[in-house]
Amino acid sequence: MTSSHLFGALFLPDPVRAAVSDRAWVEAMLRFEAALSIASARAGLIPADAAEAIAAAAADPGRFDPEELGRQARAVGNPAAPLVKALTSAVEGEGARHVHRGATSQDVMDTASMLVARDARAIVKADLDAAAAACAGLADEHRATIMPGRTLLQQALPTTFGLRAAGWLVALLDAGDRLAGVPLAVELGGAAGTLASLGSDGPRVLAELASELELEEPAVPWHTARLRVAELGAALALAGGTLEKIALDVTLLAQTEVGELAEPGGEGRGGSSTLPHKRNPVGSVLAIACARRVRGETSILLAAMAQEHERAAGAWQAEWEALGGALAYTGGAAAAVREVVEGVEVRPDRMRANLDATGGLILAEAVSTALGEHVGRGEAHELVGAAARRATEAGRTFRDELLDDAEISSHLSAEDVDRALDPAAYLGAADAFVERALERYRERR
Amino acid sequence: MTSSHLFGALFLPDPVRAAVSDRAWVEAMLRFEAALSIASARAGLIPADAAEAIAAAAADPGRFDPEELGRQARAVGNPAAPLVKALTSAVEGEGARHVHRGATSQDVMDTASMLVARDARAIVKADLDAAAAACAGLADEHRATIMPGRTLLQQALPTTFGLRAAGWLVALLDAGDRLAGVPLAVELGGAAGTLASLGSDGPRVLAELASELELEEPAVPWHTARLRVAELGAALALAGGTLEKIALDVTLLAQTEVGELAEPGGEGRGGSSTLPHKRNPVGSVLAIACARRVRGETSILLAAMAQEHERAAGAWQAEWEALGGALAYTGGAAAAVREVVEGVEVRPDRMRANLDATGGLILAEAVSTALGEHVGRGEAHELVGAAARRATEAGRTFRDELLDDAEISSHLSAEDVDRALDPAAYLGAADAFVERALERYRERR
Amino acid sequence: MTSSHLFGALFLPDPVRAAVSDRAWVEAMLRFEAALSIASARAGLIPADAAEAIAAAAADPGRFDPEELGRQARAVGNPAAPLVKALTSAVEGEGARHVHRGATSQDVMDTASMLVARDARAIVKADLDAAAAACAGLADEHRATIMPGRTLLQQALPTTFGLRAAGWLVALLDAGDRLAGVPLAVELGGAAGTLASLGSDGPRVLAELASELELEEPAVPWHTARLRVAELGAALALAGGTLEKIALDVTLLAQTEVGELAEPGGEGRGGSSTLPHKRNPVGSVLAIACARRVRGETSILLAAMAQEHERAAGAWQAEWEALGGALAYTGGAAAAVREVVEGVEVRPDRMRANLDATGGLILAEAVSTALGEHVGRGEAHELVGAAARRATEAGRTFRDELLDDAEISSHLSAEDVDRALDPAAYLGAADAFVERALERYRERR
Amino acid sequence: MTSSHLFGALFLPDPVRAAVSDRAWVEAMLRFEAALSIASARAGLIPADAAEAIAAAAADPGRFDPEELGRQARAVGNPAAPLVKALTSAVEGEGARHVHRGATSQDVMDTASMLVARDARAIVKADLDAAAAACAGLADEHRATIMPGRTLLQQALPTTFGLRAAGWLVALLDAGDRLAGVPLAVELGGAAGTLASLGSDGPRVLAELASELELEEPAVPWHTARLRVAELGAALALAGGTLEKIALDVTLLAQTEVGELAEPGGEGRGGSSTLPHKRNPVGSVLAIACARRVRGETSILLAAMAQEHERAAGAWQAEWEALGGALAYTGGAAAAVREVVEGVEVRPDRMRANLDATGGLILAEAVSTALGEHVGRGEAHELVGAAARRATEAGRTFRDELLDDAEISSHLSAEDVDRALDPAAYLGAADAFVERALERYRERR
Repeated sequence: MTSSHLFGALFLPDPVRAAVSDRAWVEAMLRFEAALSIASARAGLIPADAAEAIAAAAADPGRFDPEELGRQARAVGNPAAPLVKALTSAVEGEGARHVHRGATSQDVMDTASMLVARDARAIVKADLDAAAAACAGLADEHRATIMPGRTLLQQALPTTFGLRAAGWLVALLDAGDRLAGVPLAVELGGAAGTLASLGSDGPRVLAELASELELEEPAVPWHTARLRVAELGAALALAGGTLEKIALDVTLLAQTEVGELAEPGGEGRGGSSTLPHKRNPVGSVLAIACARRVRGETSILLAAMAQEHERAAGAWQAEWEALGGALAYTGGAAAAVREVVEGVEVRPDRMRANLDATGGLILAEAVSTALGEHVGRGEAHELVGAAARRATEAGRTFRDELLDDAEISSHLSAEDVDRALDPAAYLGAADAFVERALERYRERR
Repeated sequence: MTSSHLFGALFLPDPVRAAVSDRAWVEAMLRFEAALSIASARAGLIPADAAEAIAAAAADPGRFDPEELGRQARAVGNPAAPLVKALTSAVEGEGARHVHRGATSQDVMDTASMLVARDARAIVKADLDAAAAACAGLADEHRATIMPGRTLLQQALPTTFGLRAAGWLVALLDAGDRLAGVPLAVELGGAAGTLASLGSDGPRVLAELASELELEEPAVPWHTARLRVAELGAALALAGGTLEKIALDVTLLAQTEVGELAEPGGEGRGGSSTLPHKRNPVGSVLAIACARRVRGETSILLAAMAQEHERAAGAWQAEWEALGGALAYTGGAAAAVREVVEGVEVRPDRMRANLDATGGLILAEAVSTALGEHVGRGEAHELVGAAARRATEAGRTFRDELLDDAEISSHLSAEDVDRALDPAAYLGAADAFVERALERYRERR
Repeated sequence: MTSSHLFGALFLPDPVRAAVSDRAWVEAMLRFEAALSIASARAGLIPADAAEAIAAAAADPGRFDPEELGRQARAVGNPAAPLVKALTSAVEGEGARHVHRGATSQDVMDTASMLVARDARAIVKADLDAAAAACAGLADEHRATIMPGRTLLQQALPTTFGLRAAGWLVALLDAGDRLAGVPLAVELGGAAGTLASLGSDGPRVLAELASELELEEPAVPWHTARLRVAELGAALALAGGTLEKIALDVTLLAQTEVGELAEPGGEGRGGSSTLPHKRNPVGSVLAIACARRVRGETSILLAAMAQEHERAAGAWQAEWEALGGALAYTGGAAAAVREVVEGVEVRPDRMRANLDATGGLILAEAVSTALGEHVGRGEAHELVGAAARRATEAGRTFRDELLDDAEISSHLSAEDVDRALDPAAYLGAADAFVERALERYRERR
Repeated sequence: MTSSHLFGALFLPDPVRAAVSDRAWVEAMLRFEAALSIASARAGLIPADAAEAIAAAAADPGRFDPEELGRQARAVGNPAAPLVKALTSAVEGEGARHVHRGATSQDVMDTASMLVARDARAIVKADLDAAAAACAGLADEHRATIMPGRTLLQQALPTTFGLRAAGWLVALLDAGDRLAGVPLAVELGGAAGTLASLGSDGPRVLAELASELELEEPAVPWHTARLRVAELGAALALAGGTLEKIALDVTLLAQTEVGELAEPGGEGRGGSSTLPHKRNPVGSVLAIACARRVRGETSILLAAMAQEHERAAGAWQAEWEALGGALAYTGGAAAAVREVVEGVEVRPDRMRANLDATGGLILAEAVSTALGEHVGRGEAHELVGAAARRATEAGRTFRDELLDDAEISSHLSAEDVDRALDPAAYLGAADAFVERALERYRERR
């Protein structure tokens, strides 16, 4: 692509970058060729020593220059053809005659995509799992840490930070499941999807190849049936969106005026060049940027499903970098969120202070509910609403307005009001939900 | 939205339109409220006759005017609030006090989304299944119908129309599986996801509600964990892309110069106002347009995953029409493709004529393979390539060039050449792949 | 499409809905046919009374049923063909023979798109202008209203609400310019873009048609050169994004913990069904949701540019609703933001309180700058940063830490420190920038 | 990013890659710092020799390691901060104290983006212009080269290849205009957009900086008013879509069965590893793939417009690579299309043969028009349509069916029919449109 190191090193952890690097692609293509020769030998189509010679030559990706392969690829539209040529030159003896036998360039590229995806996905999945573990810890630890629940960015009702973290946890588990569940398959169809040059041995070779590479064996070649690739893109976007939600929550909770969370600090992390007091939510910012990039790549993959006949003229070729990018940036988001949730500083005092900032208004529903027992839900809603408005306008506390209201105080004593205004007493199923989330987490370990 | 009837009736079959209509949404919201009251009664929170009164009032969606609900919704940002108000007015007796108990507007909308999605998905799925059945029929019938396989829109090697249809079949099965596999869950969290106003009874009501509506029970409320909705969007885009691939193939195979397929005709279908000779691939055109619209909607759903705190300010509200649109247009594409594959006219004579149009060049690989047995793959490739170029340049047949080549003819007899040039003899695993596809199809019925 | 009234009335103001309604489309198609007949008469191709008869029949859109046109359109793939047929039946006398002369269905649809776009754009533009006017008022009024500037959602340095509003203003002017600047052209090319059936009179008719409809005359037919439509989509997305930025700022500034702005209230606006104390930023929420929908539609339009030959098989047909939707939802966002900025409640006291919340830390840069005069920028940055950290950790005021620091206080007196800690004295070019924005606004009125 | 060389060298020409490379970004950032110091010196804020020292240190981008800058950037979220630090270290003498004075990281990145965009855009524009020149040549040369016009991929009416090329030409001119017209502006706002640390000198420095870098001076800082960047993305997508349309046409016209165009060959270009007879439309394939990638990047830029307060937490950071990618891949598409249209092989004989393939049916409209003079348009349409259907069904020529039809032949003589069936006589305004396109092209040179 374009700038690889400046922005690559900024947004992506090294293992993820390595997993989708030029070298990784070349290595994956070579693994295909080596495995194909082994499969062909097992099927009796080529001599065993030819397969060995091919596998030997394919074992050293370093001898193939990605830039040079890319240049040569311009004439034919994909990098597999020049790699096959270079590999053939590198194979010693008779084996050279048997390189790439029966395969077409798309077989190489598609299978390599799956291998690259498998390796990169494993890294992403590990970060998703670690982030989930951290969220499980937060959920458990903060079951009783009350904070304002917020809807449309307005305080709504009390909740717990434990429940918030439990929501993150379940979302991460779901996203990880979806990503891990996308099947990865081998591709082998030959020039037009019939494996014609293998005569009747095609399915045998296909099966051996799938087994050798530990990839699924498809019912038919999928040169232009791109659900596999698009589904992977979709699962990555789902993971990206899940991570972005957590990062967005952190940026909001870390706002100066909210201050309920702070990202891990240390070594200039989150510092500003000119504003020494700042502690920027840098990890979350990187995660959000990464997730946005994932969606851009996924949109390319989803749009690329309509591919012509037996091989597409453009849509297929657009997939390679899109898939690599989607994997990489999901990895970038996962690593950043993992770091954030593993080190996040939780500030129960600020949560409590914010809860109290509305002078009890946040518990209006609780008061309504209590009053509703006596006067009906609608009537209670009206009375409490009016008291809330009066409190806001007069700058008085909600409690005082409630107690001063003749109608309300005829049904609720000061004690009743205080009970209703206690946030810790109005958490409903928060703890039960945390428990359900943790149960689900524990079950799968 | 905007134009509903002019374009709606053009792109969408009536059942799909009905499934995502205003009325369907209102009905789904009412089903939520009815089921909630029943669940609350079962949990002992409200009297059974209150639940009955609510369910009775909710049984008639026709009494609620969608336009009016929409207008009232502008003040609060969602249509659930005015509907609850209207429903409350419609409930007779004491039941009115118990409408919507414990729930928040998002509970209504999210659960309604799932109900709308379930009904619409069933229609889409039926069309996907019917299209798959038609493709299975085509695959079986045309196992031996040879046609040019085409890569980058150039003839590459012979294949069979059976294999093409088998590819469509497997893709449709995969897409249908993904769509059917997306879990649909009930939503019930109350104002901030804690079900606070239900005290400790929240989980009980949640379970009863899920059971009543036959939707999954989530571990925790998913007000801002939107994987469910986004995944549905992704699965619809995968189905849309799969359908678009088939439609694209049909438009290409139906080109005047190719003529291998024609869409079903009849009653002015595919006619042009000014060009009486045309038979436009109208069904495929509609399917392609629909699939493109699906992707637009899905992009909204994927981008909407990052939702703030306990309820989002904008991203959530953008989902409703996007989900409805994605369902509807996938349905439009599925119905159109179903109609096309059920009635498609296959023209084996044109397939054969096109195969012959290159004077045997399409079988160059077969000749290469045969020659390769004698001189090695690389050398054979060179010799055959040179003959192919000479044939093209001189306007001679490929066969003549091959036989006139001293080197080639020293290894291959005229009979050998003719055998290599027989497309029916160079189909490799085409039939085996068809069989594998049909097997997969049969297994799942 | 799908649900038109429930969500349409929620998100879209009536004039915008009307401008992209079924009726608007039918009317625009009829305007094309009427204008074509007038142009043809002027070019001497049809009798003047035929043109009159056609124009008369086309003057009443109400006689054509959009739903029925849509149904008939399924057979041919676009609604122009059935409309032409219905119009022809409605024309009295000989005029019927001359309906639609020389034109193709795409001429009707494309020109109608432009007419619909022109009318809808005018409505959107008026709302953008009104929103700009309101922002100009806010910028002027609040030149001296200091508030925290925030970067990465952290307080950074003081700014003024006037400058914030000036930024909105300039952005709205830019977005309005872009939208207004997109050229709208007539389409007339006939069945294959040659106007063949008009012989040599094609360009004459084209010119007359453009003049009659007051649309640009293109150099060549643009049946498959879709920059016009895609550019309109892009300009709508730019406007949508601009509006969304304002709405996002409002939701953030209206947060319970920030409270610097509140959306206009009144008549239950922004109320919550269960939480009487809330004042939700409903207008901003609707605007954000609308802007997200615009992007979905625009993505369809941008992806639809690659159209085959002289008329596309699917990409063109996907444009109609996408364009209508993009216009409508931009209109929805513009109307919502206009309402918000026209009625927004600004709370200078909360702005000031938030400025003070960090105990002066927000002015660390000002102290650094002052100190830098004495010890150099780097050294100053270090010293001030250390003091800021000590203040945060010790819970002391920043001022005290600064004065207690021997090194700092050897260069800066208490007076110097106080001057540096005065936010109103550290606004740089804020007022000058406000003036520049207002100047630009005034110039264009 | 990810794979930079393998796919970079495949899809992108070297100048474009260089223009968006790591080095280009570092160089652009350094140009900002150098120009800022010069502007500050002119404004009297820093000594002239300090500016010289800074400019000298900034003149050698090679001394700054992009990878290392990227790594350091992870702690702060953008690469400007570490670059400023490194630059400061590199400046000799007192100048070091004055590096980056008054600016914030976003000022560096945004201005660098504009500089990168300017350089890359110039390369893209040159390729667009060259492609337009080639299309102008084709349009002129092939004014009289008749070919089938095709709608919905069906032959519709005759057109000329000249008109097709003229359509490409006008589209390229439009796309180039849009791209060139996007204003590029300097960014300078300081930490919160007020240029506070420059006191009252901010606007002066801003003006000098704009002048020094030859970029527009904005009315106000645009840290979170992203229309500039998004508009650039949109213009690139418009250019990409325009190029993709041409490439799509070429792939379709180069189909084996159509054969009206062939991409330039030579040196293995378009060859297939296994199919020696193929001449793949490789340039068009690359262009299509590139255009699809552009749209992915543009979608990120459009979605990134909603940025919080004075600096965004994630949306801004997602722009950098998206902008670089959009520039690069538009460049890739432009270079590929340029190469294609400059060397395309046009085959008038195949065009003519394809025109004749329907036995005259493609001129049914011409016959209808001729007959319409006698019997009215509707009646003529019916009669000719029936003859067309009979011809198709009976496998007879259209001409014979027309002459055998008693009603038709009572109005049209054999000579009339032959005149109507002559494609060269039914081209309407094709030549006039070519002339209009060429005129527009000539005017702007």
